[in-house]
Amino acid sequence: MGNSFGKLFRITTFGESHGPGIGVVLDGCPAGLSINLEWIQYQLDRRKPGQSKITTQRSEPDEFQIVSGVFEGKSTGTPLTLIIWNKDARSKDYSHIAEKFRPSHADFTYQEKYGIRDYRGGGRSSARETAARVAAGAIAMQFLSGYGIEIHSYVSQVGAIKLEVPYQQLDLKKIEDNIVRCPHAETAQTMIDLIDATRKSGDSIGGVVTGVLTGIPVGLGEPVFDKLHAQLGNAMLGINAVKGFEYGSGFDGVKMRGSEHNDQFVKRGDKIVTTTNHSGGIQGGISNGQDIYFNVAFKPVATIMKDQDSLDQSGQPTVVKGKGRHDPCVVPRAVPIVDAMAALVLADSVLLNKAVKL
Amino acid sequence: MGNSFGKLFRITTFGESHGPGIGVVLDGCPAGLSINLEWIQYQLDRRKPGQSKITTQRSEPDEFQIVSGVFEGKSTGTPLTLIIWNKDARSKDYSHIAEKFRPSHADFTYQEKYGIRDYRGGGRSSARETAARVAAGAIAMQFLSGYGIEIHSYVSQVGAIKLEVPYQQLDLKKIEDNIVRCPHAETAQTMIDLIDATRKSGDSIGGVVTGVLTGIPVGLGEPVFDKLHAQLGNAMLGINAVKGFEYGSGFDGVKMRGSEHNDQFVKRGDKIVTTTNHSGGIQGGISNGQDIYFNVAFKPVATIMKDQDSLDQSGQPTVVKGKGRHDPCVVPRAVPIVDAMAALVLADSVLLNKAVKL
Amino acid sequence: MGNSFGKLFRITTFGESHGPGIGVVLDGCPAGLSINLEWIQYQLDRRKPGQSKITTQRSEPDEFQIVSGVFEGKSTGTPLTLIIWNKDARSKDYSHIAEKFRPSHADFTYQEKYGIRDYRGGGRSSARETAARVAAGAIAMQFLSGYGIEIHSYVSQVGAIKLEVPYQQLDLKKIEDNIVRCPHAETAQTMIDLIDATRKSGDSIGGVVTGVLTGIPVGLGEPVFDKLHAQLGNAMLGINAVKGFEYGSGFDGVKMRGSEHNDQFVKRGDKIVTTTNHSGGIQGGISNGQDIYFNVAFKPVATIMKDQDSLDQSGQPTVVKGKGRHDPCVVPRAVPIVDAMAALVLADSVLLNKAVKL
Amino acid sequence: MGNSFGKLFRITTFGESHGPGIGVVLDGCPAGLSINLEWIQYQLDRRKPGQSKITTQRSEPDEFQIVSGVFEGKSTGTPLTLIIWNKDARSKDYSHIAEKFRPSHADFTYQEKYGIRDYRGGGRSSARETAARVAAGAIAMQFLSGYGIEIHSYVSQVGAIKLEVPYQQLDLKKIEDNIVRCPHAETAQTMIDLIDATRKSGDSIGGVVTGVLTGIPVGLGEPVFDKLHAQLGNAMLGINAVKGFEYGSGFDGVKMRGSEHNDQFVKRGDKIVTTTNHSGGIQGGISNGQDIYFNVAFKPVATIMKDQDSLDQSGQPTVVKGKGRHDPCVVPRAVPIVDAMAALVLADSVLLNKAVKL
Repeated sequence: MGNSFGKLFRITTFGESHGPGIGVVLDGCPAGLSINLEWIQYQLDRRKPGQSKITTQRSEPDEFQIVSGVFEGKSTGTPLTLIIWNKDARSKDYSHIAEKFRPSHADFTYQEKYGIRDYRGGGRSSARETAARVAAGAIAMQFLSGYGIEIHSYVSQVGAIKLEVPYQQLDLKKIEDNIVRCPHAETAQTMIDLIDATRKSGDSIGGVVTGVLTGIPVGLGEPVFDKLHAQLGNAMLGINAVKGFEYGSGFDGVKMRGSEHNDQFVKRGDKIVTTTNHSGGIQGGISNGQDIYFNVAFKPVATIMKDQDSLDQSGQPTVVKGKGRHDPCVVPRAVPIVDAMAALVLADSVLLNKAVKL
Repeated sequence: MGNSFGKLFRITTFGESHGPGIGVVLDGCPAGLSINLEWIQYQLDRRKPGQSKITTQRSEPDEFQIVSGVFEGKSTGTPLTLIIWNKDARSKDYSHIAEKFRPSHADFTYQEKYGIRDYRGGGRSSARETAARVAAGAIAMQFLSGYGIEIHSYVSQVGAIKLEVPYQQLDLKKIEDNIVRCPHAETAQTMIDLIDATRKSGDSIGGVVTGVLTGIPVGLGEPVFDKLHAQLGNAMLGINAVKGFEYGSGFDGVKMRGSEHNDQFVKRGDKIVTTTNHSGGIQGGISNGQDIYFNVAFKPVATIMKDQDSLDQSGQPTVVKGKGRHDPCVVPRAVPIVDAMAALVLADSVLLNKAVKL
Repeated sequence: MGNSFGKLFRITTFGESHGPGIGVVLDGCPAGLSINLEWIQYQLDRRKPGQSKITTQRSEPDEFQIVSGVFEGKSTGTPLTLIIWNKDARSKDYSHIAEKFRPSHADFTYQEKYGIRDYRGGGRSSARETAARVAAGAIAMQFLSGYGIEIHSYVSQVGAIKLEVPYQQLDLKKIEDNIVRCPHAETAQTMIDLIDATRKSGDSIGGVVTGVLTGIPVGLGEPVFDKLHAQLGNAMLGINAVKGFEYGSGFDGVKMRGSEHNDQFVKRGDKIVTTTNHSGGIQGGISNGQDIYFNVAFKPVATIMKDQDSLDQSGQPTVVKGKGRHDPCVVPRAVPIVDAMAALVLADSVLLNKAVKL
Repeated sequence: MGNSFGKLFRITTFGESHGPGIGVVLDGCPAGLSINLEWIQYQLDRRKPGQSKITTQRSEPDEFQIVSGVFEGKSTGTPLTLIIWNKDARSKDYSHIAEKFRPSHADFTYQEKYGIRDYRGGGRSSARETAARVAAGAIAMQFLSGYGIEIHSYVSQVGAIKLEVPYQQLDLKKIEDNIVRCPHAETAQTMIDLIDATRKSGDSIGGVVTGVLTGIPVGLGEPVFDKLHAQLGNAMLGINAVKGFEYGSGFDGVKMRGSEHNDQFVKRGDKIVTTTNHSGGIQGGISNGQDIYFNVAFKPVATIMKDQDSLDQSGQPTVVKGKGRHDPCVVPRAVPIVDAMAALVLADSVLLNKAVKL
């Protein structure tokens, strides 16, 4: 269970890293939406492995097939299914860990929960599953663009290298200008160097992705349990390797006084806006029309190129060899995943919000 | 919408701060559970207003009535309903803000989303709603105690005062020893002093609650979208004033190398455990049997005893007067809410996990 | 579980026949709806016991209290809770069956499923629970009236007495003209006589309620699993004592040829209508704008005034005495329940349908 | 929306009649179940077109591909996806109805609801979608067989030809002995003759499928809204062309007295059983361990080989030509669909029931 996300704009993903393919069924996409296939592929390309020297070298074209739900270029209101067939699955690479529990991987917990697991490439626990989310998220973005909503995520931290410039002072059009997806060129280069050095040392490192959502209408989100930020947090914490989520003032806001933190309402033209935005665009769980921004913390990837002591399925000590293909740092490829999950949350909220008033 | 939480062990809360009362329907509590009324009242007492000098002075006994679902002291498997009738609702206190948007409150967003709002005491957006969750959470705890699961949350930060001692070195039985609910006496006193000073200055301040879940069986949580930590994050971000959630190594884990961060599996007796616990007891979204621990960031309360510039519903400038009863810092009373939400997540996960194997 | 109904316009009912009361939480009612309290009471009065000589003599005023969700006479978009406190619960009347399984009641199945049951008046399995649905359904009707949708159910059969006149030839304003709620005066009298005679003989008898939904917009219902008629069927089969559901041509349609059964499309003014309506207003699971009509079959009430052989909880033979208060025929009081459940289905469908197009 | 079914054992189907294929994602199948591929194919073969002279002549092998969720022959607890690729889709056959509303088809309602539709072969409204359910249902049956549960549906009526022998007196092993799937040879032949004659006249005819579920444990189903029979009714009414559902005594039970209808409890060995079974194996919405039996009414297929007057999308009169491939009577191929939907309901109920007791 737990393979579906969203209430009305709802996806169900399926597939394993080394099975025939991975895919997604999107049920609830409104009918009549023009589906831009190039846009879907563009988003998949941003996530795909092998795209640069700082990502895993597994070579997957990540091309998708539309199986249902699109007719003459438009969504029909029926389930929209996309499949990305696996091409470069070297399952033999994993025979050495078939019986072993890799440290900080899902091997042990899957085995204990299910009594069986597809060990090849992590099976269902592989981040490869997120390609399905990216494809569905690309459609959500197309839906949202009709509302003027845009989503821009970028890498704001790698290891201890943290971009201190706030998003308002960045040119978010530059995110794709470098392979680490940090729109601040200088910081980006330092991040790339750190990842590259980490890779060479056979190790891995963590990072932070910052999400910025603009053009948000007032009124998205529910007031009690499905607060908009709770939905976003749930979405982000559902991405592999994520350890934390904060929005608006976040953990730093803890130190502030209410008199500093409160965002003053003023009128700009016909619109009610706030002079500051510590709220992160959400008050009482509902969007207030200001930008929504948040940070997502990713731990260092568990797969490293070093031998590690561990146990096998029978509980005997063993050594997990440092081999296979992996990312030394997950955040450059996590950017499109954060974008996609944010888009899915917003699309669902837009649909739900239609039902609130008479 | 959005007033229900959980899939199998599922609550629906209702009620406004100044309506007749607030309550909860719990559907999915297994039959035959002995319901300890004192325990429910104890948890409500921990959350109730007016309990100490550092909380709001609204005086609510927060006594509950069981309306359904309990027969001869035991749950029957039918919906279990509890209502806490409001006693000390001074609705007139709020007439001065009936038409005004209080800064960083939900007034503006509710008004825009619904076109109508119960402005008295914040109506549904009041943290008073959380009493219903605490009552339901108290029942969840009784269910969980049959599995040996315990939940201990405490205040680990108020403003800039941060308890640096990790939870393993604290005596979690001492949480109730002081009014701020920090089990480290010395730090607790500094926190209390800070809150008290903040209150006297008519201001408010934020804080952090740390949650610790012990006795967790292996296998709770779902692998993709309902990862156990995503459920916990969703639960915590659904509490009023929360701005961030992190578990295990959290945001600090970002800076670590994979070789440091990975938790080594070893055998202790018959049990497979890990030597470190940066994973925070969850791997691949599923509990691994180690302690689960997490931090929840709370912003400073929006209600302050100072006049603030704002707008009224017609968009005209106005002043929001600093009056009414409020908490200068939310975290002492947030501790039982964090406990309750954690309990609800775990109870739901336990039920779901029963269905996974044949 | 299973105490909630609806996806967006969603109710959760609670309460037992002989507990403090029964109630309902309605989450998803759009904000700003004027709540007509008299209308709710009117619907409850139609369902309440003791209303005529052919119903049970339990005397319940069935007055309701609004606990949440209404402010200054309007819905606020927050959960709307209504409670009907039990007044005339003579729990002692049931001590004689505390340990016995009444034939064709839920005593045995509840005991086996839950290991515990509130035997007083059937506890949760009592049809008294449907009062909560009627209250919520009354609000749904108010919502639907804004769309021009009307709901008229009536008794079309009692025992073998079947009203052969189709609904189009009846004056549905006459439903309340008699105590059996059959708008055909002559048939109504025969039905009343039959029920009265059955009551005097200490027995019970079944019946059929016909539902007619008019003013339906085109497009309600989902195409595959939540077909509008499947939702209606699910709703009706969820009413106590229901054994069957058919809509449009129903079971009789089986005998027809396609060439007879097909409904021809023609234009009436600007509107596309059908010349016949064997489809019952639903094609492919989606409303086509024609009247929706259906039949709901109710079995004879299980409680009779005759002694019956049975078993007790220990499996020993026993006799269930014929005593207590009961309805000799459920259909007169089932009419408002059918109305209410139909209203709940339609309100939910209206909300869902808003989300389908861009 | 509305393309998912079930709460824990949950399927989502996708695909159109003339798109690349149709498929299903099953999320919630317990891990470790041996997946018998031959059994799935066998069930698909029972449903597939072109299997006899009384079904449509579209020739589809209906072979399936497993895309995910099975590893080394067993379910892994992750989403199980099956796709049946379309082979014999003659989309050109449908160009003549691209702009026309076929009488009693879903053309009009889809067009109005979505503003767009895949007209080829009915697109998503085609009964071809049910192949996906049959595949998933075949897996549900494998799961249920571990509990001793068996499902046997058969054709009990075609047009006015009704098999009056109750199921207890039939040999349900003979269902597959003839092409109409009626286990009573003599009646079967009459039915076949009627269908054949109807086909030759270019017309269609309705029928009834009777379902019999045996080996049911006590306790399946929920007491209020998800009563086991309401779930079954919902499932059956979700099958294309279904107009009615009844279980146990059904519509005929209406005429009975309570004293006749009540099923007496007696002990047989250690087991509590009933001497009669008018309840149809379900009391208070919960299975009582007796056989569950029900009838499902199917209308005559809307596609006939005769010209019919209708309207086109612009509202102009047109003639729908009698051509294409179709079933003259849907019930022989509906039998495996009824089996599958019943299996899905029961599998879901079994999983849910695990959570009820402590």
